[in-house]
Amino acid sequence: MRDVSIIGIGQTPVGEHWDKGLRLLAYEALAAAMRDAQVERVDALYVGNMLSGELTAQEHLGALIADFAGLRGIEALKIEAACGSGAAALRIGYMAVASGMYDFVACIGVEKMTDQQGSTTTTGLATAADAEYEALHGVSFVSINALLMRRYMHEHGYKKEDFANFAINAHRNAVNNPNAMFPHLITLQQFAEAKPIADPINLLDSSPIADGAACVILAPTSIAREFTDKPVRVRAVAIATDTLALHDRRDPLYLEGAAISTQKAYAAAGVGPADIDLFELHDAFTIMSALSLEAAGFARRGRGVALALDNEISLGGRIPITTMGGLKARGHPVGATGMYQIVEVALQLRGEAGANQVRDARIGMAQNIGGSGATVVTTILERI
Amino acid sequence: MRDVSIIGIGQTPVGEHWDKGLRLLAYEALAAAMRDAQVERVDALYVGNMLSGELTAQEHLGALIADFAGLRGIEALKIEAACGSGAAALRIGYMAVASGMYDFVACIGVEKMTDQQGSTTTTGLATAADAEYEALHGVSFVSINALLMRRYMHEHGYKKEDFANFAINAHRNAVNNPNAMFPHLITLQQFAEAKPIADPINLLDSSPIADGAACVILAPTSIAREFTDKPVRVRAVAIATDTLALHDRRDPLYLEGAAISTQKAYAAAGVGPADIDLFELHDAFTIMSALSLEAAGFARRGRGVALALDNEISLGGRIPITTMGGLKARGHPVGATGMYQIVEVALQLRGEAGANQVRDARIGMAQNIGGSGATVVTTILERI
Repeated sequence: MRDVSIIGIGQTPVGEHWDKGLRLLAYEALAAAMRDAQVERVDALYVGNMLSGELTAQEHLGALIADFAGLRGIEALKIEAACGSGAAALRIGYMAVASGMYDFVACIGVEKMTDQQGSTTTTGLATAADAEYEALHGVSFVSINALLMRRYMHEHGYKKEDFANFAINAHRNAVNNPNAMFPHLITLQQFAEAKPIADPINLLDSSPIADGAACVILAPTSIAREFTDKPVRVRAVAIATDTLALHDRRDPLYLEGAAISTQKAYAAAGVGPADIDLFELHDAFTIMSALSLEAAGFARRGRGVALALDNEISLGGRIPITTMGGLKARGHPVGATGMYQIVEVALQLRGEAGANQVRDARIGMAQNIGGSGATVVTTILERI
Repeated sequence: MRDVSIIGIGQTPVGEHWDKGLRLLAYEALAAAMRDAQVERVDALYVGNMLSGELTAQEHLGALIADFAGLRGIEALKIEAACGSGAAALRIGYMAVASGMYDFVACIGVEKMTDQQGSTTTTGLATAADAEYEALHGVSFVSINALLMRRYMHEHGYKKEDFANFAINAHRNAVNNPNAMFPHLITLQQFAEAKPIADPINLLDSSPIADGAACVILAPTSIAREFTDKPVRVRAVAIATDTLALHDRRDPLYLEGAAISTQKAYAAAGVGPADIDLFELHDAFTIMSALSLEAAGFARRGRGVALALDNEISLGGRIPITTMGGLKARGHPVGATGMYQIVEVALQLRGEAGANQVRDARIGMAQNIGGSGATVVTTILERI
């Protein structure tokens, strides 16, 4: 297989884009990435998206976006793995270039969520869970995470406020991200007093739904420097699955899919947790940050929250996370999120993260989680 | 890239499976294919599906089916390209094996449509069209095809009954397919008197919505004979796109996406139309059969219908089509259809098509069309 690098990145601001449709958002990210890569054409296009059918009555996004972007004729497909769709599109693009099938591939994540009523969006998001055994009985995504958080607090002896620094850290980093949805600081007191959503989860444990699109252009590493001074090598992109329903897990507090996915990625890249300079994790809710840190080997079981308490997750800490605001403060356009994470890791490795630059960042990791951990995509990128 | 072969095939009957959910249908096809291939495990699973979110409130089919099938942990994703989703899943599986990433990959097409009210299904199917420029204005899929058929009749001087043999031939072949939804003969008189749906399209021009699942297991050709006496080599699987909206086409009667996709497939396989022993085409409506035959090089422009009139499309004809009943009479579970076509071509090449066996079939082709031609997947298979 050929070695693969990212030669261009692009993203739209994350937010409520009431003036822009799904195709325009996708196009803006794609056009920015193609300009960045200095390519005028790509051979194929893979679109990560979860809810275009449910929320905008539009499937067939591959052809839609290829057509709208003036790329009519090329291979173009939509890839879906719930909230893990964005990074799943990278996985397919990676195979297309690694195999030798194509030289230039665009991988887009796009989602348009804010035009709908909240109840429609909540119902849509629940399609990531088991429709017949979870959603049918009224479980929503936030309530699944509330069950996990309550159990974690009980098992490991944490109180609610111990999770605060995940949110505070994310908002602090979002301040310097021009594409973030909520670029403002929050305080411990605000966190403690935030409105409950599904106890013990409150508003500031939760990432916001949003509209947005992000894109990378892939090419063989052997020719990457013809297009950019700052290629970012894809050392690994690995997918693993777990039970769809939370109640089928042997241990609900252990994200086995995340652990397998991370181990596959570490093995493929020949690195371990100590080599990772920053980690864009899937902080849809604060509890997911803790579980992801543990599954990826950055903390022992029950100690993920302690990493936040000790402030080891900040830009200068042992393992910087959510360095551009994360899902919490950059925003969480579900099917696009995985691609935002990858673009942000690439920004760090290119030394273009501005005030949030992680010093000497050489290897970065992103972990994109679908559902309550049923699909996990782990990507390891390297500055070369 | 490695050479890839189909080492196992499986399918469920097509019909109204009110007693079976989506995951069970998918599992039955997968289990049959794995038994056929004599493998107990696959490395990855790609699921072609269009409407699970809209019709059964279930996304995240990759993890769902992997979990239900006892394959928890493996890479599993859903691939969507409207009615072209089934064959699109083959394309991704093909890349995964050709690249060397995986040795054993399952590609499934599955759709569950008949539990819903007809209006919900019609709205769902319209998500294959342009939501903002077609569907919003009331265009349904059958009305788009009616526009095409009316224009074709006008341009090329055919009358409505000239299309009859596409449907009669399909039903004749379905009689011997135990998995067909409508395995009974129809007459020219029945065709002429069938209820209008969207003039000039009537009920017997139209394929039925349905539930069903089909599956193939892929492996490197180099080891295929360890698992089956009848490997079927994937000579090509090629995807091309066209404008999403019909009104954006330079010539609405020319399926440019189909032409590009077919040319790519012919080039990759090193064959031409004269080498193809049978052609499973996308007869969602009779007009699509004519346009597909023309785009794929089996008839000149305006002469696709003449092929049917001359009965060159029957099992003993110049180019046998819809040999197991096609979308018309086998049934059209949209996201599964492309995989049914591939399984049926494989059956023919393995010499297992029973009374419908095309004599000495060595090379077969399938063409799976998404929307009104916006995504086209052309697959060429060979008996080895």
